[in-house]
Amino acid sequence: MINKLVEKMENLSAPIMVGLDPMLDFVPKHILEKAFSEKGENLEGVAEAIWQYNKGIVDAIYDLIPAVKPQIAMYEQFGIEGLQVFKKTVDYCKEKGLVVIGDIKRGDIGSTSAAYATGHLGKVTIGGKTYRGFDEDFATINPYLGSDGVIPFIDVCKEEKKGLFILVKTSNPSSGEFQDQLINGKPLYELVGEKVAQWGELHMGNSYSYIGAVVGATYPEMGRVLREIMPKTLILVPGYGAQGGKGEDLVPYFNKDGLGAIVNSSRGIIAAYKAKGYEKYGAEGYADASRQAVIDMREDLKQAWMAAKK
Amino acid sequence: MINKLVEKMENLSAPIMVGLDPMLDFVPKHILEKAFSEKGENLEGVAEAIWQYNKGIVDAIYDLIPAVKPQIAMYEQFGIEGLQVFKKTVDYCKEKGLVVIGDIKRGDIGSTSAAYATGHLGKVTIGGKTYRGFDEDFATINPYLGSDGVIPFIDVCKEEKKGLFILVKTSNPSSGEFQDQLINGKPLYELVGEKVAQWGELHMGNSYSYIGAVVGATYPEMGRVLREIMPKTLILVPGYGAQGGKGEDLVPYFNKDGLGAIVNSSRGIIAAYKAKGYEKYGAEGYADASRQAVIDMREDLKQAWMAAKK
Repeated sequence: MINKLVEKMENLSAPIMVGLDPMLDFVPKHILEKAFSEKGENLEGVAEAIWQYNKGIVDAIYDLIPAVKPQIAMYEQFGIEGLQVFKKTVDYCKEKGLVVIGDIKRGDIGSTSAAYATGHLGKVTIGGKTYRGFDEDFATINPYLGSDGVIPFIDVCKEEKKGLFILVKTSNPSSGEFQDQLINGKPLYELVGEKVAQWGELHMGNSYSYIGAVVGATYPEMGRVLREIMPKTLILVPGYGAQGGKGEDLVPYFNKDGLGAIVNSSRGIIAAYKAKGYEKYGAEGYADASRQAVIDMREDLKQAWMAAKK
Repeated sequence: MINKLVEKMENLSAPIMVGLDPMLDFVPKHILEKAFSEKGENLEGVAEAIWQYNKGIVDAIYDLIPAVKPQIAMYEQFGIEGLQVFKKTVDYCKEKGLVVIGDIKRGDIGSTSAAYATGHLGKVTIGGKTYRGFDEDFATINPYLGSDGVIPFIDVCKEEKKGLFILVKTSNPSSGEFQDQLINGKPLYELVGEKVAQWGELHMGNSYSYIGAVVGATYPEMGRVLREIMPKTLILVPGYGAQGGKGEDLVPYFNKDGLGAIVNSSRGIIAAYKAKGYEKYGAEGYADASRQAVIDMREDLKQAWMAAKK
């Protein structure tokens, strides 16, 4: 799966993943009204609206990008009905040939991590038949509990040829509160980065490891250091666009092969129709606006990975 | 909710929560067979078996304990069907008067944490009607992303009079990999503990804060230090029993009021019928075995909180 992801990034010249993180106020009115009239103005109606909204975006962009990253919290907020749409979205994106990163940020003690890994990446066997819970291709993981919370995920990934992105340095303003604390003169995120590189050796793909890292676009200097610490790690870079990261800042996240980083944009793509420069599409043309936003992002990022290649 | 929890702990002389973390091989054969014959040998059958197993335990112990802590991963591993049983279990325990701690260990950047908080502790309003996702009373939270990943949970807790338990020092063997690293001579878990005490001031109950901490039973010396750093914090203590923690080790986790800690046991209670000393109950009597195990745990812990009171 890491090989598929890296190849698609190369072939499409698009180190891009789109965050399918639907907020209810992103969903255009015409979709919401249609869903309410069909399913009622209730949870089922909201779930249907989110599903139709997602489907419209995926249909408009799937040929341009290698991967999507649905953020499960945005579905979990609507309980079971929301999670059913998460599952439906994962399945649909995979049908469309997209690599699906479940942004789930799970992590617990060993036996519990094993259960999460089963539910999101693995399978259960009952009466000789196999069932898969959410069945993403990759999952994001929180490292705070250390190796024995991470290894059960890696074990399932090895069996399923799937992968992880482990939080190293997150994009949010207060990420430094703990992550930047110095340990023998070295920030915690570097220590975590070193561990990710070690864990990565347990499950290598052709050029990159199945075990990736999350490093926010908002901290390019830290990105530079982490790129060196984790040379064979694919870095998932959140925080581009709406959170403030720009293409030109992202050079340090890429390797000299022009690869090594995949940049996420969520609202910058899925709610592009509400953003400056995309007004002409209107709410009815929200999916076309998303397509144009992907094309614009691809151009913006081209500078970064081309510069890294030099 | 924190006041209800503390009162119940006192009235029942039981600073105990039971982890409803069903593993499939804990479920007695007669329950599994009945569920399979009713719903089929498939995911629905497994879900039904887990539900009946949980219900049997809850019915046998609800009058002895203040709280339960279902671990969502054990349900999430079975996908949507599993999560439906999680929700059913949460609802049933609340009907029985139990305080429900959702062991979900979520945590993300601000807007995403807000969505998790909505789904697990809060509500959404659609067409003038209110819907609640999983609706636990407390949730466990991972602090790795810092304040702006935690505050959105606290905001929802204030509105709903609900609470959190934030991971400080976890019970697993490799928890020290990051959590014990020294920062200016002080381990990271102390720094997190200081933050938890500060966050706790934002949402105080009568004697304890709505914002609690998780500190594993397996590290009593660290428990002693953290008890001092967080005097008004209720400490959720996992790792008792199966993970190796004993009653006599738990004195440092309690305050001089004989309160301040609530100890979790999962398999030690719910799979008691498989443990040494409880053989006479057999699989058919699994719920009675669980009841006896709670009574035995209450006795074992009495030493600890009585000793702390001296």
